Amino acid sequence: MEHQCSDHHPGDCHPEHAPAEPGRRKILKMAGVAAMPLLGAMSSGGAQAQAASASEPALGQSPFTVRAYGAKSTGGRIVPLQIQRRALGARDVLIDILYASICHSDIHTVHGDWRAPPLPVVPGHEIVGRVLAVGNKVTKFKVGEIAGVGCMVDSCGTCENCLSDREQICLNGATFTYGSLDKVSGGHTFGGYSDKIVVSERFAIRIPPGMDLVSAAPILCAGITTFSPIRHWRVRPGWRVAVVGLGGLGHMAVKLAVAQRAEVTVFTTTPGKIADAARLGAREAVLWSDAAAMKRLANTFDLMISTVPYAFEAQPFMNVLKLDSTFVNVGLGEARGINPGAMALGRKSLSGSMIGGIAETQEVIDHCFARNIRPDIELIRPEQIDAAYERVVKKDVRYRFVIDFASGKNAA
Amino acid sequence: MEHQCSDHHPGDCHPEHAPAEPGRRKILKMAGVAAMPLLGAMSSGGAQAQAASASEPALGQSPFTVRAYGAKSTGGRIVPLQIQRRALGARDVLIDILYASICHSDIHTVHGDWRAPPLPVVPGHEIVGRVLAVGNKVTKFKVGEIAGVGCMVDSCGTCENCLSDREQICLNGATFTYGSLDKVSGGHTFGGYSDKIVVSERFAIRIPPGMDLVSAAPILCAGITTFSPIRHWRVRPGWRVAVVGLGGLGHMAVKLAVAQRAEVTVFTTTPGKIADAARLGAREAVLWSDAAAMKRLANTFDLMISTVPYAFEAQPFMNVLKLDSTFVNVGLGEARGINPGAMALGRKSLSGSMIGGIAETQEVIDHCFARNIRPDIELIRPEQIDAAYERVVKKDVRYRFVIDFASGKNAA
Repeated sequence: MEHQCSDHHPGDCHPEHAPAEPGRRKILKMAGVAAMPLLGAMSSGGAQAQAASASEPALGQSPFTVRAYGAKSTGGRIVPLQIQRRALGARDVLIDILYASICHSDIHTVHGDWRAPPLPVVPGHEIVGRVLAVGNKVTKFKVGEIAGVGCMVDSCGTCENCLSDREQICLNGATFTYGSLDKVSGGHTFGGYSDKIVVSERFAIRIPPGMDLVSAAPILCAGITTFSPIRHWRVRPGWRVAVVGLGGLGHMAVKLAVAQRAEVTVFTTTPGKIADAARLGAREAVLWSDAAAMKRLANTFDLMISTVPYAFEAQPFMNVLKLDSTFVNVGLGEARGINPGAMALGRKSLSGSMIGGIAETQEVIDHCFARNIRPDIELIRPEQIDAAYERVVKKDVRYRFVIDFASGKNAA
Repeated sequence: MEHQCSDHHPGDCHPEHAPAEPGRRKILKMAGVAAMPLLGAMSSGGAQAQAASASEPALGQSPFTVRAYGAKSTGGRIVPLQIQRRALGARDVLIDILYASICHSDIHTVHGDWRAPPLPVVPGHEIVGRVLAVGNKVTKFKVGEIAGVGCMVDSCGTCENCLSDREQICLNGATFTYGSLDKVSGGHTFGGYSDKIVVSERFAIRIPPGMDLVSAAPILCAGITTFSPIRHWRVRPGWRVAVVGLGGLGHMAVKLAVAQRAEVTVFTTTPGKIADAARLGAREAVLWSDAAAMKRLANTFDLMISTVPYAFEAQPFMNVLKLDSTFVNVGLGEARGINPGAMALGRKSLSGSMIGGIAETQEVIDHCFARNIRPDIELIRPEQIDAAYERVVKKDVRYRFVIDFASGKNAA
């Protein structure tokens, strides 16, 4: 099932992927309860929620069980699970998940490529859903609005880094969306491959009315991860920007850099992606193995963004980097074999960047909506996650799998 | 023989190391000829040179042989040699070498640590001497003035990099002072462990009158190499700057950063250098092996300059680097084991820097003279070069060996 939204205008994407504002009854139905007393200021379009019965507890008043998809062992298959979500706190929002997309990090985590994950592991940190309930001190969302959740769900909020909008490097340790120590509930966090999630409003991103929801999800990790270096290193019109690796992150990097009016070159190992690069707006695409092209491009690029998630030989890329310029590794593959002499001669830098803070994540969502920058996605059902993982590993995705949790709900 | 000039004022250093302006006769004597017709505008203090006899060729009119010290085989001993210098071109200066200091690069080259050197190899790229003759189009020097030569002796002068004062990365290939293809004379270049050198005036640095000459030599590589990143990354008062490795380059990095009113921390492997660091102006010095100190200093430094010339584990240093900051590798040892995730989280950068252009080399000479920034040196005789190499490798130098070619001449 191929779903290519990138050439659409906001709001004209397949309507089943962008559910219209549901009525109050529908929200309750989506929440899986017929009627319930709601915590605090839960409301829809200004209508105050009504308590149906004092004997029926509101969803979120106590910890509650939701359906999820995850692995019970490192490298295990993705199977349906039951997980618990915390009771809705005063500043929390309860989100009914509609879409969650598949990031390569999900696969690395499940496979234990970085470390043994806490089990069961429920991945997913590109999440879009509808606010089902809000705590009584929530000001950022109303019930019925659309919220996104990216890679983080908590941080101290008081350290130097949090105060400078870099919650991802909270000095007291950010809580990541899955597999992270859960400082509120204990245990570890569970991600977006699930029916619902409860997060602090601080970590929920406002999805603008009219934005295509299925397209919004991948922006919450793939988008912010590539947007942040483009902003930090101040890509300007006419800059030569290289994107190494054309996958979920890479294709967003191309679209975002092109939107800055940079001239983008893609480096890929997959001949079949050469044509895609042009369609995405790149000026050219080059196979890493093309020694003549690599030589021709010596000292060319003002900024390079690598999205490669495995170890790779980096010196050929340092060679095509312009003097005084930076190769930013966001894919987190080890950049091997860099010659310190060559680096020094050109005063070339290797750096990295990891997602972005909450303010910047909001910025990239608003930026993509305003400019109609959309990922290329393929919508799948939750039962297809394992097969999708295999295809991601085989580089057979154009360019982001989004898991459809909305259809099931519409059908319920 | 210990010679510590660093606390002296300009001009009050041991007078035998800063020969007074020699008279015309002395120049001729130093040149090893009694009298000679001189090329072009050769003059001393404005006095026009007189041709003594048409039958005696001027030094520099033809290629000429000079005494040098070098290795005849890779890793071989440094022995006296005869090498040829080119005839003086219209824009060349002929320099009678007074001092040449020993850079660790000299040792790497002789030992073939980077590649097999062209043989014989005559090292030396920190050279100070007196101008003996100038070509007829030379405007930058007069005979009798003091000139320095650093790591380069030629470049195309017309490419983008040369035109932006970065001759060391000339797109047509800079000619380095030794072991480099000599585009003028053929063969390869011979460095400063020698009696005389002929170089284009473009690559000769003016040594200000009154500057201590023995102290000036190490600035031409160790000084510019550490000054350039301090300037490029704009070290400001109060910045926390770390210097990794306290040797010839490292001790200059400390002095130059302290002169910028940075708070400097030295990382060394040698307990005996801890006290030296304080004497050089560092706020503190830390052994790399001191895990508690490395932990305490996490996320501290605004800039780190590594002068380590061998491969080293770099992640502990990346850990003490502040967010968004840069670890600059000027020592060219391979920075191993950097964790791309940690780098990305802190948006920390690894970069390099190699010497500096000619304008910047002139700048560091003038800067050091104006602020009385002097290397700590130990003066040796040419016959002691091998022993000095051994001591450099054993980290037993405080902090630069300077080879005295002046004394022999004074005695001649």
